[in-house]
Amino acid sequence: MIQFRPILLALGLMVCLVAVAMLMPMAVDYADGHSSGLVFAVSALVTLFIGVLMVLFAYDRKPVKAGLREGFLLTTLSWTLVSAFAAIPFIGLGLPIGDAYFESVSALTATGATVIVNLDNQPRGILLWRALLQGIGGIGIIVFAILVLPFLRIGGMQLFQTESSDRSEKVMPRTYHLVSAICGVFGLLLVACTFTYMLLGMTPFDAICHALATVSTGGFSTHDASFGYFKSPALDWAAVVFMILGALPFVVYIKAMRGNSEILWRDAQVRGLFKLLAATSVVLAVYLELTRDIPLLDAVRLATFNAVSIVTTTGFVTADYTTWGPFAIGIFFILMFVGGCSGSTSGGIKIYRIQVSWLLTRAHLQHLISPNRIVTLLYNGRRLPEDVPFSVVAFLALYLATIGLFTVLLTAMGLDLLTALSSAATAVSNVGPGLGEIVGPSGTFATLPTGAKWVLSAAMLLGRLELFTVLVLLRPEFWRG
Amino acid sequence: MIQFRPILLALGLMVCLVAVAMLMPMAVDYADGHSSGLVFAVSALVTLFIGVLMVLFAYDRKPVKAGLREGFLLTTLSWTLVSAFAAIPFIGLGLPIGDAYFESVSALTATGATVIVNLDNQPRGILLWRALLQGIGGIGIIVFAILVLPFLRIGGMQLFQTESSDRSEKVMPRTYHLVSAICGVFGLLLVACTFTYMLLGMTPFDAICHALATVSTGGFSTHDASFGYFKSPALDWAAVVFMILGALPFVVYIKAMRGNSEILWRDAQVRGLFKLLAATSVVLAVYLELTRDIPLLDAVRLATFNAVSIVTTTGFVTADYTTWGPFAIGIFFILMFVGGCSGSTSGGIKIYRIQVSWLLTRAHLQHLISPNRIVTLLYNGRRLPEDVPFSVVAFLALYLATIGLFTVLLTAMGLDLLTALSSAATAVSNVGPGLGEIVGPSGTFATLPTGAKWVLSAAMLLGRLELFTVLVLLRPEFWRG
Repeated sequence: MIQFRPILLALGLMVCLVAVAMLMPMAVDYADGHSSGLVFAVSALVTLFIGVLMVLFAYDRKPVKAGLREGFLLTTLSWTLVSAFAAIPFIGLGLPIGDAYFESVSALTATGATVIVNLDNQPRGILLWRALLQGIGGIGIIVFAILVLPFLRIGGMQLFQTESSDRSEKVMPRTYHLVSAICGVFGLLLVACTFTYMLLGMTPFDAICHALATVSTGGFSTHDASFGYFKSPALDWAAVVFMILGALPFVVYIKAMRGNSEILWRDAQVRGLFKLLAATSVVLAVYLELTRDIPLLDAVRLATFNAVSIVTTTGFVTADYTTWGPFAIGIFFILMFVGGCSGSTSGGIKIYRIQVSWLLTRAHLQHLISPNRIVTLLYNGRRLPEDVPFSVVAFLALYLATIGLFTVLLTAMGLDLLTALSSAATAVSNVGPGLGEIVGPSGTFATLPTGAKWVLSAAMLLGRLELFTVLVLLRPEFWRG
Repeated sequence: MIQFRPILLALGLMVCLVAVAMLMPMAVDYADGHSSGLVFAVSALVTLFIGVLMVLFAYDRKPVKAGLREGFLLTTLSWTLVSAFAAIPFIGLGLPIGDAYFESVSALTATGATVIVNLDNQPRGILLWRALLQGIGGIGIIVFAILVLPFLRIGGMQLFQTESSDRSEKVMPRTYHLVSAICGVFGLLLVACTFTYMLLGMTPFDAICHALATVSTGGFSTHDASFGYFKSPALDWAAVVFMILGALPFVVYIKAMRGNSEILWRDAQVRGLFKLLAATSVVLAVYLELTRDIPLLDAVRLATFNAVSIVTTTGFVTADYTTWGPFAIGIFFILMFVGGCSGSTSGGIKIYRIQVSWLLTRAHLQHLISPNRIVTLLYNGRRLPEDVPFSVVAFLALYLATIGLFTVLLTAMGLDLLTALSSAATAVSNVGPGLGEIVGPSGTFATLPTGAKWVLSAAMLLGRLELFTVLVLLRPEFWRG
């Protein structure tokens, strides 16, 4: 039997946390003398009330025993439910329910696709709320990826099971230590990013909001022109650094802090990400330089910033790269699928899955040539656990099939194929901007039909939770004892 | 060491066969009093000369011992080389080399994408040549799929190893029997299709050419308007039947002829194909009926014909379905990837791989829920061999990655994303028409840049040979003894 009490308890605590977080934008709006402070106050009250009810109803002195099923259910429920509560202020500020939920999911999944236009003239409370949600989501994602996914054995994440994960009596203290370490690293990056942005000319408010969007690789800006608003090469390069830092595996930071600093340049995923970013930036910069009349340094910066932004699934833009020509569009289309490292805030297929798939393809070809030869698969210096190959490749195939399915659903709602396909890809990969005039880097998701916004909300959640976490809930076996 | 002699011998024999085949269009052109007969005569002579030289050079009385590597090499070489010789008449008739090779590859891989415009006014010889090449290619594909692929263990085709495949002393007679059975079934279908088409109003020449294009699921027409030229509902339905017959597993026909006629409706792939075709036809017909002012029967026919044409990877068109609206385009985009049954002339991912992937996804989800439960995988009433799951899923992932790679290559040649992506998909899946104005159902591949034609030729060959057959040749281990 699935234990619903501990799930409800955890959900209730999360909802209370969301209520508390709403006090920040409330305070900002009251300080600005803006009436929307009231919206946040009421939202916080409603949310807190329900959250406390949930906790009171679920609280029990008996020790909780939660297992695999509870883990799956809690993960999916927490993201869908927290998104719903986090959407209350958006509804209060006049967004239709579908738009509000979309915006909230987009923030909490650190996607960064927006339906709010005219950002520059919005009250600061709502801008801060969007930014905060990315930060909350960002931490949630990393905790989920490092603590929950390896335990659920999803998509090859068992590769990243920490050594001590079998000693179950130590689960609670270990969990506590890991979560605090993750929050610590995230906080450090956030502070460093905020100060860097301020030093390079952002207002403190813009700096905080953009730092939250950068480190969580979310990509919401406080300006319609996104990061391009600042027109500052120094800020662009600073963002490049922090977007990459947000897309590196947080486990590597934690290990580095514990003294193993070598790991920073030894880790296969870190090296893979850097190689990929270097290669695409160079190719795009050369292409820009050859086809357009831009100074070389500008070409390098434009290419690097936008490539890094898409690969890390941040989704900031400093230029409408869809005007760079078909080759650039082709590259950015593929980059939408890639993603950063596991155990980070970035989405997409992720570097390690691409690396493992490459290893497997090579081994498979060797096996086809010499069927009797035994090939040992090493990844990152360790032997690949037996069930990883299938997990990884199945994830890859299902990932692409999911995008295909969402594409058809979106065309059924009247979106043209390019918009539908790129929206589906950008949502499942949690990137942000799509391609084409509507959802491209200089468009927004505002004009999409309401149905499409619900579909894309589902796509963002499904991608964020690595597909299988949600799909197991659809199996009848899950619900039978 | 790889044995090159038997490979050269087999290639030489194939080249001679191509030369002999050229005599047919030659005869037609001479009978029509058309000067292009000379082109075929010269092409046949040149081809025969080289073919005979190859045979003479390679012939050896000692028995040949060919193994796995020779199988891989011969497969790739035969398709690329035969395409080159088959392109000679196209060059003689004035096509640039890139165009000629594209057309030849498109015919022999039974893709059906054309670069020849104004088909209605071409001499009959060239039209017959295109049709014949599809027939030759069609038989070649089935032989390759039934005899070679299971032996190479590619893409899960080991599922279809015939029971006696281990008794190696029986290989030669078994091969002979199987090849004659395949040719027999193909011939029967061809004759039946030709007569049906003639009965329903086609000229004998059109009937033969279209029957060759139908049964091989190639899709070349003798008219620019493709099958839409005939404007005959009866012909449309006849083509639907024969396209499906061409996309069914030929092994099933052979078993049915040997008395096991039950298999025709018991086979999992056959059932899967019919279910898919029924579902998509109904959905598209309803969509057409709801959005356009067409009589119901016409809507059903248009939907069924074009869905069957794309799923079986034939590529005939009776209407420009890209004008039906975004949902239809979305459906046709996905259908481009699907393909028919294994051991048929159709390309794409193929029904059994989709069914096996679905089985595996279900089992994987069950495994995630109950890690200790043992799930037995049954496909078509038999237990899945141990190495099939990974083979199938790896094929799927590599298939989609290949299309992605070709998409980027094509955008680098200046094609817009929709044209590039749909061309890559239609080529790798051996379908024929793409999407968008240039390569869509009412366009041709004629105006593409030459580089793109070479890239697409490679894509068609790679898809036809199920990727791995070609990719093993790129591994250094293949060439080291």
